[in-house]
Amino acid sequence: MDQPNSIRPFSRRLHEAVRRCRNPVVVGLDPRIEQIPVPLRPTGSSLAARADACKQFCCGVIDAVAALVPAVKPQVAFFEALGTPGIQSLIDVISHARSAGLLVIADAKRGDIGSTAEAYADAWLGASAATGYGGDALTINPYLGNDSLEPFVTVARERGAGLFVLVKTSNPGGGQFQDLAVQGNETVYRHVATFVEHLAVHSRGDNQYGDIGAVVGATYAAQLTELRVAMPHAWLLVPGYGSQGAGAREVAGGFDGQGLGAVINNSRGLIYAHAREPFASRYGASQWQSAVRAATEEMIAELRAETTVGRL
Amino acid sequence: MDQPNSIRPFSRRLHEAVRRCRNPVVVGLDPRIEQIPVPLRPTGSSLAARADACKQFCCGVIDAVAALVPAVKPQVAFFEALGTPGIQSLIDVISHARSAGLLVIADAKRGDIGSTAEAYADAWLGASAATGYGGDALTINPYLGNDSLEPFVTVARERGAGLFVLVKTSNPGGGQFQDLAVQGNETVYRHVATFVEHLAVHSRGDNQYGDIGAVVGATYAAQLTELRVAMPHAWLLVPGYGSQGAGAREVAGGFDGQGLGAVINNSRGLIYAHAREPFASRYGASQWQSAVRAATEEMIAELRAETTVGRL
Repeated sequence: MDQPNSIRPFSRRLHEAVRRCRNPVVVGLDPRIEQIPVPLRPTGSSLAARADACKQFCCGVIDAVAALVPAVKPQVAFFEALGTPGIQSLIDVISHARSAGLLVIADAKRGDIGSTAEAYADAWLGASAATGYGGDALTINPYLGNDSLEPFVTVARERGAGLFVLVKTSNPGGGQFQDLAVQGNETVYRHVATFVEHLAVHSRGDNQYGDIGAVVGATYAAQLTELRVAMPHAWLLVPGYGSQGAGAREVAGGFDGQGLGAVINNSRGLIYAHAREPFASRYGASQWQSAVRAATEEMIAELRAETTVGRL
Repeated sequence: MDQPNSIRPFSRRLHEAVRRCRNPVVVGLDPRIEQIPVPLRPTGSSLAARADACKQFCCGVIDAVAALVPAVKPQVAFFEALGTPGIQSLIDVISHARSAGLLVIADAKRGDIGSTAEAYADAWLGASAATGYGGDALTINPYLGNDSLEPFVTVARERGAGLFVLVKTSNPGGGQFQDLAVQGNETVYRHVATFVEHLAVHSRGDNQYGDIGAVVGATYAAQLTELRVAMPHAWLLVPGYGSQGAGAREVAGGFDGQGLGAVINNSRGLIYAHAREPFASRYGASQWQSAVRAATEEMIAELRAETTVGRL
């Protein structure tokens, strides 16, 4: 509403960032106390001590990857679990990411009706959100239908922000309701996809892709290909790479011929690389940032080798 | 996990509170700055000033209704829109409600996969949640399927808390995906309801109703009756009474023969009663708490006259 007109639309900023970095990797910030490198673990168990450790860890990850990738995706749940100190850490992490030149996708999966959705949009969209935790884009849940999504779309447009609507999620049980076959033989997720494509088309400028995109899990490769075709104007945010089991071949169908149209998230596989081979032997906990960087470079190389990302 | 065994299950505590109050009214706490009574409006526009006004208002509502109703339902979005001061206000409001003997239903509509869902559950469930914003129950979104709900169910059981899963929401567009006809001629919402009934059965003790319930909007009276039958062991949380257009007749089908099995939420129609007739003329902004009380008493009387609530 009160945003300067100089804020360029999210889709354009994402496009430019992916082209500049020559890769579509999103580093997921999921700070789990029990997994962060030993040197950063909190001494006490207070919320404040744990929230501070999470902040130090996430800011360290950001410093390690800022020169490599276009975006980070803080998972809001892990900050919310640490109360108001956790929320303050989230604010600080988002601010640090933005200062480092990264786009921020706030993974909050919000959704509610009418004016309540407006309050969530006001809280979570755009660098200028008064809360301090506005993302360049936000994940949202479609179960409540079109009038629950519209307030998010309106605020996103006003603030040059983006949205990723859950369409086909990466978890094993995601299909329980999403894959139900609707009469006429389409699935529930295809119905959601059709609506997201409509929103994507109406939110695009002179680029191929609009500001409204979709979450489509890497763990369902056939559906990812299907949904790339079904939503030709929607950026896809693709979780599930790495520890959820998908690799570069599984996500290949998410990209267009220019290596655009999808961003691929990896959380645990990158940020906890110090604890898995071959990075554990090579770096270990004391050089955990080098492990994060090496794992990120490896993922970028895999995507360049196996997908159209190589053409960026 | 570390909760005392003395915490009785949510369904039993809700049953007792409804019987004791002889009504199933839930007062929705949706603090909108522009609607709160003039004497309580903030002087400045800072987040801290606005968050403090919201807190004073919600605590005043609680004082007005604590002797009348079993529960309040803070709508988390309105607190989240005010940043960390807003979250602190939410903590204070929940604490005040609990001290006043009210059950607290945190309306956050959370949902995510696996260990992320666990983080949300840890944050939002039970009076003993370290965050300070744990509710006696929490609303959650089913779109991500069974394995996304299970972590909530597990933590709820450990902490004696309850869950209300979105099944059929009250908004006009709620049917876009919820009403899709699945092959075999059932709707998506009926598939969700079948799963919620399964969770409800497995979470009940020696009462009729379990700790896992469903959100079913008052604005779809026929579906409310259908879903009461489809989920005989699930408490229904019914929003949409009052300003969304539904009255006592529309919610009648949500109750069992003893006047149990449903709790009816009204937010704007009660908390902003000072701004609508006949309460505006009678009380006005200076006596806004009397208006809240009178509107709540009127709603209770309507339910007693038109539904089996009269048998409580």
